Amino acid sequence: MNGAESLVHTLADAGIEVIFGNPGTSEMHVVAALDREPKMRGVLCLFEGVAAGAADGYARMTGKPAATLLHLGPGFANAISFLHNARKGGQPVVNIVGDHASSHSRYPQAPLTSDIMAITGSVSDWVHHCNGAQEAAGDGARAVQAARAAPGHIATLVLPADAAWSEGCAPAPALPATSPRPVDGAIIESVAAALRNGKRSALLMRGACLQAVGVEAAGRIARRTGARLLHDYFSPRVTRGEGLPEVERIPYFSEQAVDCLKGLEQIVLVGAPAPVTFFAYPDKPSWMTPDGCALLTLAEREDDTVGALLALADVLEAREPGETVRRVIPGLPAHGPLDPDSMGAIIARLMPENAILSDDSLTTGPGMHKSLRFGPRHDWLILTGGAIGHAPPMATGAALACADRKVIAVSGDGAAMYALQSLWTMAREKMDVVTIVCANRSYNILNIELGRVGAFNPGPKTLEMLDLRNPTLDFVKLAEGMGVEASRAETTTEFAAQFADAMQVKGPRLIEAVLA
Amino acid sequence: MNGAESLVHTLADAGIEVIFGNPGTSEMHVVAALDREPKMRGVLCLFEGVAAGAADGYARMTGKPAATLLHLGPGFANAISFLHNARKGGQPVVNIVGDHASSHSRYPQAPLTSDIMAITGSVSDWVHHCNGAQEAAGDGARAVQAARAAPGHIATLVLPADAAWSEGCAPAPALPATSPRPVDGAIIESVAAALRNGKRSALLMRGACLQAVGVEAAGRIARRTGARLLHDYFSPRVTRGEGLPEVERIPYFSEQAVDCLKGLEQIVLVGAPAPVTFFAYPDKPSWMTPDGCALLTLAEREDDTVGALLALADVLEAREPGETVRRVIPGLPAHGPLDPDSMGAIIARLMPENAILSDDSLTTGPGMHKSLRFGPRHDWLILTGGAIGHAPPMATGAALACADRKVIAVSGDGAAMYALQSLWTMAREKMDVVTIVCANRSYNILNIELGRVGAFNPGPKTLEMLDLRNPTLDFVKLAEGMGVEASRAETTTEFAAQFADAMQVKGPRLIEAVLA
Repeated sequence: MNGAESLVHTLADAGIEVIFGNPGTSEMHVVAALDREPKMRGVLCLFEGVAAGAADGYARMTGKPAATLLHLGPGFANAISFLHNARKGGQPVVNIVGDHASSHSRYPQAPLTSDIMAITGSVSDWVHHCNGAQEAAGDGARAVQAARAAPGHIATLVLPADAAWSEGCAPAPALPATSPRPVDGAIIESVAAALRNGKRSALLMRGACLQAVGVEAAGRIARRTGARLLHDYFSPRVTRGEGLPEVERIPYFSEQAVDCLKGLEQIVLVGAPAPVTFFAYPDKPSWMTPDGCALLTLAEREDDTVGALLALADVLEAREPGETVRRVIPGLPAHGPLDPDSMGAIIARLMPENAILSDDSLTTGPGMHKSLRFGPRHDWLILTGGAIGHAPPMATGAALACADRKVIAVSGDGAAMYALQSLWTMAREKMDVVTIVCANRSYNILNIELGRVGAFNPGPKTLEMLDLRNPTLDFVKLAEGMGVEASRAETTTEFAAQFADAMQVKGPRLIEAVLA
Repeated sequence: MNGAESLVHTLADAGIEVIFGNPGTSEMHVVAALDREPKMRGVLCLFEGVAAGAADGYARMTGKPAATLLHLGPGFANAISFLHNARKGGQPVVNIVGDHASSHSRYPQAPLTSDIMAITGSVSDWVHHCNGAQEAAGDGARAVQAARAAPGHIATLVLPADAAWSEGCAPAPALPATSPRPVDGAIIESVAAALRNGKRSALLMRGACLQAVGVEAAGRIARRTGARLLHDYFSPRVTRGEGLPEVERIPYFSEQAVDCLKGLEQIVLVGAPAPVTFFAYPDKPSWMTPDGCALLTLAEREDDTVGALLALADVLEAREPGETVRRVIPGLPAHGPLDPDSMGAIIARLMPENAILSDDSLTTGPGMHKSLRFGPRHDWLILTGGAIGHAPPMATGAALACADRKVIAVSGDGAAMYALQSLWTMAREKMDVVTIVCANRSYNILNIELGRVGAFNPGPKTLEMLDLRNPTLDFVKLAEGMGVEASRAETTTEFAAQFADAMQVKGPRLIEAVLA
């Protein structure tokens, strides 16, 4: 058994079921080893960003890591931006990065020789250079363990080609994963006491506690104490909709976020950091906790946030279910131009239960998010680290993880151009994903931000740098070029018909939604 | 004048004429400053890799840096792979990377906060974090100076948003660029003596000496001494064709490369490193200099390679012009399937003088390169660092640099999917580029490499990871989706007609060449 085979068996034994790959020559033995390991599936991606973004989406929906297979320093580099998003979201990913054979690394003149440890180290929580085939299995087990440490980490194993092709040892047994840290009873008591002090309070939640069990517990606490339930705009995964207590989302723009938090006297952090703005703006604070508001920490992000909320509810004797969302099925909007609200209403009316929304649409997303407030139960995923283009690759990974659920990727048109190669993988794997490109023909968020950062009276060169009109992108052709059926909707009527159709059929689909 | 304006004026005064940008909120003041600086042009790219690859292509054709404008750590990360190529090719690039305002960087929870110095440092020769608006101009001048140091470097200035929007100082004057180091006369004498010793010799050239003046001098030396003229497969730019001495290219595959170098008793390095293989293979040497062959260095890569060859020719009294290429216009191949040789013959027959070939087609490129051996004068550019996808972005930058020359980008189909967004910029800027996608429907190089690295008897999972057939990519639709006229050629007749047509018209065009 060569090193690559011992590594692949080790990863599979540790629970890695899928590897999103964009391999090259130095990874050929790892690819070949997949044929000897029935527990692991290889999914080909045409760009490394797709592999990384898909691994993130997979982790969000399964709670466990997928692997990526990447080609030396430059190949890994193409994955960094979405690994950054995964890292910000506390998601586990195991990267296997081929490198030159150790005898070859001494030659800086070889084109693909790079400072691979600097490139991989720039975004990894755990990084290791495998010292030989005999160590590949052990290193693989440690990589999975590192990735699974709560809440989830980026673990990167650099595998020289000779460590892949030389004689390895037997596969290594899986190492125990560090479970999320239980929260000390004294902390729970003290937070419970604080929530009884009559102050205007909120729980600010992030992580696993934003799925059904945690949200339900939070709902009971809210009912018992009057605390508001909040999550930050860029939470990695939020389960919401019918039958669950509503957790309010703190808005993106800082003025609205400040309004949202106004009047709070204490904020209990449950796996969440203190809220700050996305960007800084001249003469505006980044820190969003209201003056005089106390910040209490119930759980850090590596803690068991769900257990902490359950325990807190117990201590508070919060047994009565919180107020839950009752589904409201909106009417179809009148025939007319498409906007975020009308699109949202159509989606809220027509989408099935348990859909997964993968959102990267900064100027369209909020309207849609609002419309789905009373929608069927769904999961909302977003680009946690602000690296744009993430909606299609994240949807790819989510669809692979949840083959029985409809995935809806919603992307701005500017954002969609970063990792659109995802569509090809969706087509190849016949994934049940409808990708909606919200085509406002501009980097619309930047037109808004331009004034907000104080760059007033923009001239023609400035405006051209934010404009996507010349030429107009044709997402129908782009999708068809990658084997995905596609259509364009310019009115509410067209969008409703096309979206309804997409909901009836399984398989990949793209709708270019031209916004008024 | 704010910091961004002082920086932009400084860059323009130092000779930066174009900035390839994919900006976000934190770069809005730099974008706005472009309207106040008529000497600098902003070119919008839909993905950071396009910006970096274009800057590389621009540098290769002008010998001077363009700037890129990138969005924080993740935006820079998307540019790393092509910056790696530029760095390996010794090309100058000035990256301006927006960062959070300094007051905001203290918040690790802000989504876009990353270890930006680690990310930028992983591929930059010079990297600096601007400490405030008053320093932006001076930093900009230093960045250009660092980029222009011979042979050309990656210089990265991280510009916090508040250093852009706060009051800056006056633009800084350009700093002197370090010229290429002249080569000492004693070295030239000693190499001249060696070339008179009767041993079988070759000059291995790289850098500026592979353009007309250097090649012409090398031709005289070859004629005088009998030395062969060689360059490595991944040389950043080679001027060749009609009227110039031929410089042989060392082949990609190591067996062929070893054959090419066989029998040499001394190799004179002129700006080139000692030859090594691209990858290592089991039980094969990476080092390609024949046993017992002496390696002499005439010039390092930071030296004046052209001056060194001119001086060497003088010392050798090598006044008679070397044998030069006489153009052979091949007949059009008979009607039949397309292959690298027939495509090459068609291109060699129909392409105009002074075309620029931007090549990223590992299994098709060699045939085409051979066909152009007796073609009209042209420049050949290739992915110097092995990070694939580079042909379209490099063509974008080359076309901007040389608006009066036809640019021909030749890409494999796998490679074309990495930075195809380049087509949109070509369409927007009406660039005179024809992109040829060599569609063999696979990562063909990997099918070859699989056996070469010893991964024999590949199973179905392995083969699927190298296959691009399911679904078939439609590059005509992909190009049209980005506003570029496109067609598909499945025979020599179709390709000849489409290529001839593309040569008659100015403007962007794509041909999907389906290979047999």
